[in-house]
Amino acid sequence: MSTVYVVGIGPGAYEKMTVEAAEALRKSDVIIGYTVYVELVKEHFPDKEFMTTPMTREVDRCVLAFEEAKKGRVVSMICSGDAGVYGMAGLMYEVGVQYPEVELSIIPGVTAATGGAAVLGAPLIHDFCLISLSDLLTPWEKIEKRLLNAAEADFVICLYNPSSRKRHDYLAKACDLVLRFQGEDTVCGIVENIGREGEAWKVMSLKELRDTQVDMFTTVFIGNSQTKEIGGKMVTPRGYRNV
Amino acid sequence: MSTVYVVGIGPGAYEKMTVEAAEALRKSDVIIGYTVYVELVKEHFPDKEFMTTPMTREVDRCVLAFEEAKKGRVVSMICSGDAGVYGMAGLMYEVGVQYPEVELSIIPGVTAATGGAAVLGAPLIHDFCLISLSDLLTPWEKIEKRLLNAAEADFVICLYNPSSRKRHDYLAKACDLVLRFQGEDTVCGIVENIGREGEAWKVMSLKELRDTQVDMFTTVFIGNSQTKEIGGKMVTPRGYRNV
Repeated sequence: MSTVYVVGIGPGAYEKMTVEAAEALRKSDVIIGYTVYVELVKEHFPDKEFMTTPMTREVDRCVLAFEEAKKGRVVSMICSGDAGVYGMAGLMYEVGVQYPEVELSIIPGVTAATGGAAVLGAPLIHDFCLISLSDLLTPWEKIEKRLLNAAEADFVICLYNPSSRKRHDYLAKACDLVLRFQGEDTVCGIVENIGREGEAWKVMSLKELRDTQVDMFTTVFIGNSQTKEIGGKMVTPRGYRNV
Repeated sequence: MSTVYVVGIGPGAYEKMTVEAAEALRKSDVIIGYTVYVELVKEHFPDKEFMTTPMTREVDRCVLAFEEAKKGRVVSMICSGDAGVYGMAGLMYEVGVQYPEVELSIIPGVTAATGGAAVLGAPLIHDFCLISLSDLLTPWEKIEKRLLNAAEADFVICLYNPSSRKRHDYLAKACDLVLRFQGEDTVCGIVENIGREGEAWKVMSLKELRDTQVDMFTTVFIGNSQTKEIGGKMVTPRGYRNV
C-alpha cells in the first residue's frame, strides 16, 4: 500500500514547519501543491520534483497526487498552514474513495490563527472561532449567522479570507455584525504575510478595523469583551478572574 | 534587552514540534514548564536545566521565567500544543508588565485541535470553534451559551478539557446542549494522548459520544451538519457544494 502525505507547511517560513513535515518532504519523490505554496518550499528542497495546479483546480490536484502514488512514488500534497484547516485534507479523503490502495497520512501544521496570534501577542488564549469570509463555497447567510452567534457568545473571532477583489467590503460587513454585540473599542488586530517576507501587524479598535482595507494575505483577529492591549500587543486573559 | 521564548511544543512527540521551537529550546539555558510537559521534552534536550511549578502555580512560573531572564540567561517557557491556545502566552504578557526590560517572543505550535484532527481524518476543514469545558476560570453559563450558539450556527466544535474528576458529567451536559440543534447521528470523534504514547482515536455518533467517558488527555470533536464518515475517518467537506 502506498501513502500520500498531506502536509501542513505552516505559515511559510521553513522554521515554522514541524520537524515531521520537513521529514515528509525530504523523503518524498514529488511535492504537489498550489503554485504559491510550492514556491515557498522549493528553495529548501531543491532536488525534488514539483507539480502544481492553479487555485480552482483542487480536485485535479488530488487526482494527480493519487495517480503519482499509484506509480509507487512517495508523494506529498502541501497546504499552507494546517492541512485540515481550510486545507486539502478533507478533499483528499473524498477523492480518495476512488483510490482504496492509497493510504493518507495527515501531517498537521501551524495555522494562520495560531501563527498570526503569536505575532500580535496572545489574542486567542481561551475559546475562539475561525470563520472564513469567502462565500465561494458557503452561502453568505451562513457566514452571517456564524458571525452573529460567535459575537453574541463572546468568542474571540479569527477571520480567514477577509477580502478579495470581488469582496472588498466583506470585512466592513462582518464588523457591523459583530458590533451588534461587542463595543466599538473592542481590541482587534491584523497580521499580513504571517511568517513570510513583508510580515506586518497592527492592533486597533473594532471601529478602526471596520474602516480598514485588507487583502487576501491578511488574517484578522476580533477580540472579546476581555481582550486588552498590553504594551501595544493584543492579549486575551484566560478565563474571567483577575490574575 | 533579554528575551523569554514562550514555546508551543505541539502535542508531545518531538517530531510534531516546529523547527523554530526546537531551535529555541536548543539555544536556551533553562527550560521552564509544567511538570508533565517538561518530561516530554527532557530526553531530547538532556544538557539543559529544567525548572517546574505545579498545575495551579502559573503566575509563579511566569515570575520564575522573567527572573531567570533578568539574570541574563536564555529562557524558554514551554506549553503543550500552542503557546497562545489555552497556553501561557497571555499570562506572560500580563505578568511581563512588571518586567519591561524583558522581551517576549511567542513561538506557535500545533494545538490539539489540529493535531487531533490529523489523527481523526479531516474533521475541522472549514469554520470551527474551540471551547474548553473547564469552569475553573469561566462561569458554566458562559460555556453553555457558547456551546448553544456554536451548535446553532453549525460550527464544527472542538472541546478541550472535556472532563476531570470533579466534572465527569460535563461532556454529557455539553452533548445535550448541542443535541438541541444537531441530530443524534452527527459524526463525532475523540482522540486520546495525541502524538504521545497511548494515542487512540474513535469515530462515533453524537448520541454515542454523549454516553462516552473521557479523561483530561482527550480532545473531542463534534461535527456539523455536513460532517461524514469516509472509510472510518471523520471528514467535513469544505463548503456546501458537492465535489
